[in-house]
Amino acid sequence: MSESEYISLVNGVRTVVVDVGNRGLHYGDGLFETIAVRHGLPRHWDLHLRRLQRGCERLGIPAPAADVLAGEARQVSAGHERAVVKLILTRGGIRRGYRAEDSVAADRLWRAYPWPDYPSHHGLDGVAVRICRTPLARQPRLAGLKHLNRLEQVLARAEWQQEYEEGLMLDTEGNVIEGVSSNLFAVKQGVLITPLLDQCGVEGITRDRVMEAAHRLGWSVRVQPLRVDELLASDEIFLTSALIGIWPVKRVDLETPDRSTRAFTVGACTRRLQEQVNRD
Amino acid sequence: MSESEYISLVNGVRTVVVDVGNRGLHYGDGLFETIAVRHGLPRHWDLHLRRLQRGCERLGIPAPAADVLAGEARQVSAGHERAVVKLILTRGGIRRGYRAEDSVAADRLWRAYPWPDYPSHHGLDGVAVRICRTPLARQPRLAGLKHLNRLEQVLARAEWQQEYEEGLMLDTEGNVIEGVSSNLFAVKQGVLITPLLDQCGVEGITRDRVMEAAHRLGWSVRVQPLRVDELLASDEIFLTSALIGIWPVKRVDLETPDRSTRAFTVGACTRRLQEQVNRD
Repeated sequence: MSESEYISLVNGVRTVVVDVGNRGLHYGDGLFETIAVRHGLPRHWDLHLRRLQRGCERLGIPAPAADVLAGEARQVSAGHERAVVKLILTRGGIRRGYRAEDSVAADRLWRAYPWPDYPSHHGLDGVAVRICRTPLARQPRLAGLKHLNRLEQVLARAEWQQEYEEGLMLDTEGNVIEGVSSNLFAVKQGVLITPLLDQCGVEGITRDRVMEAAHRLGWSVRVQPLRVDELLASDEIFLTSALIGIWPVKRVDLETPDRSTRAFTVGACTRRLQEQVNRD
Repeated sequence: MSESEYISLVNGVRTVVVDVGNRGLHYGDGLFETIAVRHGLPRHWDLHLRRLQRGCERLGIPAPAADVLAGEARQVSAGHERAVVKLILTRGGIRRGYRAEDSVAADRLWRAYPWPDYPSHHGLDGVAVRICRTPLARQPRLAGLKHLNRLEQVLARAEWQQEYEEGLMLDTEGNVIEGVSSNLFAVKQGVLITPLLDQCGVEGITRDRVMEAAHRLGWSVRVQPLRVDELLASDEIFLTSALIGIWPVKRVDLETPDRSTRAFTVGACTRRLQEQVNRD
């Protein structure tokens, strides 16, 4: 396949600009999806679409027709052996003020980006992570959604440069929630554990796929609150996202005064799930 | 003065569009100011500028030069007897991902809007407000800032149509914080009380001006946590913002099963502050 252009598309039109009145810009009033492209096609499109539709329902944004979105996803992905496609969906209308206009269609903003080319040893040997100082606020109305209010993630990501592949975020009450741009799993005595996301955090599609794979393997899965000491006492830790798949965590650095650190080995459960999830 | 155009300006250029990669759109990574224009000039520009600069410092966004901002504010305001000018300042850079690019100037997005022409009886007789179901999350890192992550306000404003002039928002622990787009004051036995904004809420410039006016009058001012029952037990309540000035609250409707309501009369303290603050 030849090198293709990384295009962007706004409501079906090829353009790199959007109206300055867009509600995503003014209020973060919308949702997004970050999609891996392989062989010119968006991977796991059905899962992305379903999450987007659930998000629209919770925020009261009229969801665009599924076939329109699918067509645009294919158009932006076409010609790329590997790429990242991001879809931003914002509530329509450009009137000033928080109040939304009735019956205005949502705006669909697509853009393709080069594939990040993560080193393969991240998946093989694992990555080093830190625990971020920036907390996640607890907001049940937005919990689980991949919405556009992401200042917490921006501030957390600004805490380090290149020393770590990811940072872990706790909520304001000290519960471990997720990575800055990934979900988090722990394995303890053969049980797969992932943080409960009823107060904050994003319900990742790869998180869902990992839980399904674990169920297929007959493993116990627990979605529960998770404290830092429980995380550090687990046997294996790994991160998930649509772009990284599964990355084992080989080290967690803490922001404690003694700069303590905890090393992990890449365990059999993580390997087994990598086989399952990367195969699909 | 003749009718002027409501223009928009992006980084000094007259245009109604912005790059689809703008970080305000992707993450709400920025700040805003809503400015009243009178006689062709932005009102209280110094206060808006100072708050914007404080916000930039807290978010690590390089603040644009003050004279550039002042010139653009005048340009967008020019020719309007009355108007609203909104400035959105977003962190520069359009690379994918939460990590900010170093040393990229912030983007300055300006737009003028018609003045809302609120009925004068809102300021004279007071307005009816409701208590919103959508809570404000507690996030000390963002508290006080007029940042672009405003989904909570969008959801709160969607709770009613035109029956109320404003809604009051509580935080997730039940403390009264502010209006959806205004700050809140109560008067109790001659003491002026306004909610503490160390966990959430926006530090409004009119809120500051009201507190200064009260100090000048020799009144006691308390910035403190405020519960709903304390609010309802106060003698006077009023709302403040750069657009409305001071609006007395004449009625608070509760979302209790019995749909209870509490009426207020417009008191002498509110009237005295209206004289002080609207005069400036």
